[in-house]
Amino acid sequence: MSEFDLIGRYFAALGPERPDVALGVGDDCALLEIPAGQALAVSIDTLSAGVHFFPDCDPEHIGHKSLAVGLSDLAAMGAEPAWATLALTLPAADEDWIRAFATGFERLASAHGMRLVGGDTTRGPLSVAVQVHGLVPTGTAIRRSGARPGDAVFVSGTLGDAGLALRRMLAGESVAPELRRRLECPEPRVELGQRLRGVASAMIDLSDGLAGDLGHILRASAVGAVLELDRLPLAPQLAELVAATDDWSLPLASGDDYELCFCVPPAHIPNVERLAEALALPLTRVGWIRASAGLDLRRPDGGRLTRPARGYDHFPVADDRAD
Amino acid sequence: MSEFDLIGRYFAALGPERPDVALGVGDDCALLEIPAGQALAVSIDTLSAGVHFFPDCDPEHIGHKSLAVGLSDLAAMGAEPAWATLALTLPAADEDWIRAFATGFERLASAHGMRLVGGDTTRGPLSVAVQVHGLVPTGTAIRRSGARPGDAVFVSGTLGDAGLALRRMLAGESVAPELRRRLECPEPRVELGQRLRGVASAMIDLSDGLAGDLGHILRASAVGAVLELDRLPLAPQLAELVAATDDWSLPLASGDDYELCFCVPPAHIPNVERLAEALALPLTRVGWIRASAGLDLRRPDGGRLTRPARGYDHFPVADDRAD
Repeated sequence: MSEFDLIGRYFAALGPERPDVALGVGDDCALLEIPAGQALAVSIDTLSAGVHFFPDCDPEHIGHKSLAVGLSDLAAMGAEPAWATLALTLPAADEDWIRAFATGFERLASAHGMRLVGGDTTRGPLSVAVQVHGLVPTGTAIRRSGARPGDAVFVSGTLGDAGLALRRMLAGESVAPELRRRLECPEPRVELGQRLRGVASAMIDLSDGLAGDLGHILRASAVGAVLELDRLPLAPQLAELVAATDDWSLPLASGDDYELCFCVPPAHIPNVERLAEALALPLTRVGWIRASAGLDLRRPDGGRLTRPARGYDHFPVADDRAD
Repeated sequence: MSEFDLIGRYFAALGPERPDVALGVGDDCALLEIPAGQALAVSIDTLSAGVHFFPDCDPEHIGHKSLAVGLSDLAAMGAEPAWATLALTLPAADEDWIRAFATGFERLASAHGMRLVGGDTTRGPLSVAVQVHGLVPTGTAIRRSGARPGDAVFVSGTLGDAGLALRRMLAGESVAPELRRRLECPEPRVELGQRLRGVASAMIDLSDGLAGDLGHILRASAVGAVLELDRLPLAPQLAELVAATDDWSLPLASGDDYELCFCVPPAHIPNVERLAEALALPLTRVGWIRASAGLDLRRPDGGRLTRPARGYDHFPVADDRAD
């Protein structure tokens, strides 16, 4: 048995057992049972060292984040997490690293009732691909294409914190642990996503910044939107920074927020207010959908902001992803 | 829109449309509908440059093989291919490369009625992770754990061809195109796998060599086996090489055969013979399952061969995968 086979044992039984897993890790395929009346929601994402995380990032955080980005995609459809698969590429069979990675992955998987059902561990430059599988009652998933003129636009949590953490780390500055967690250990809004079924008309998770991600909803729905900049939910540090510089690129165009942006018909707005209270999570109305195309970034004085360059100011090697 | 977004367009509609895809590429998740009475079979695999293929390998072949390895896993469960997702990591947004990759991927996907429903394209060292999804009537999937004493052991096709191609390429020797295709463009035995439902008691696909992969069946089934070496199906080149050297490592312990190894209760052996004829594919009885543990490699004179070192003699960087 090779080192890599041994390491595979860390992934043999990760996350809670589920009765719908007929066959888990250890055969050519996993076998899964989908209940009648449920659709399967799937998404795959890769995190690569030096592109999506610093190569010396705590492996526990890499384990967490590699699953969190997929959970955030499930949340954005209103789906309930079920199973994950993991394709892990490692430069060396470092057992300490893998143990920490598995710890971070498992903690988040268990918090969301998700079971790891398959994987592949190979040698190569550090990279993690995770596929998530979720269930959603047929016909109730929340797509990007359902926004209608007059809908309110909401976002959860606060914007730009992860972008600020990254900017400071790239500049070699110290970053408070709580701010760094916003970058390295985002909390996907899984429960919020499910509770917005029947409430939200369209939804997306924020991975590349509000302006760009809301833009995906606008294109898919063939509508436009107005954002009122003074309504954007900002943590104190962000609010001070924006006030001092009039630079909106962090809240509007930086990556890794992993908050949800969703549209809500006026009749459902009270449901959102109740949800915010029930989940103890800020859900802030930041604008509205209109029929005419384009995204209007409106200042408090009525003036307009030019959309900041896509702040996918991730790691240097990825800078071609900027617009 | 970034270069990588543009490149993503090559993957927007790949493979045949399927009515069970409620939502394909382009939202946070794909939405898929599983028919009643079917289980979902999933498997994820990564191919990395320099580990699983030569960095200068024809991208059309990389596209083919990255899907073929997953199709081979579906075949080994007796599952019918349905959907795939693709996590592609590229050092640069090279449109010619991606077009060729997509061509190879699509040709094989279309041949098996498989639709690409989601993906992620990022920058980094060349690596391809593919997850395949298949359907199999509930309770009929063929696992590794069902082999019973007295079952016959069969393999499809011929053994060791890919290993021979790789060995020659690593030595800088010329390789005939047909032999090279066995390494770079394996044909997964998808139809055979499905037609063995109700016939085979256990099955695995051969990715790491017959001795090791049959060993997985033996452990999962808590049985042993005898292989009769003179029955192993070898192409003429392999047969000559083995006869000249008495080195059995290629047919027994080299990677990438992507043939199926399966066990068959005696009553079903005539079905296998009929299947071989119907599919015009050699299905060769190479040994039998016995109650006592271990794998007995029997020579024609009754002597025994020591199991060759695991010939996962892939690319040099992966040499720690040898036993």
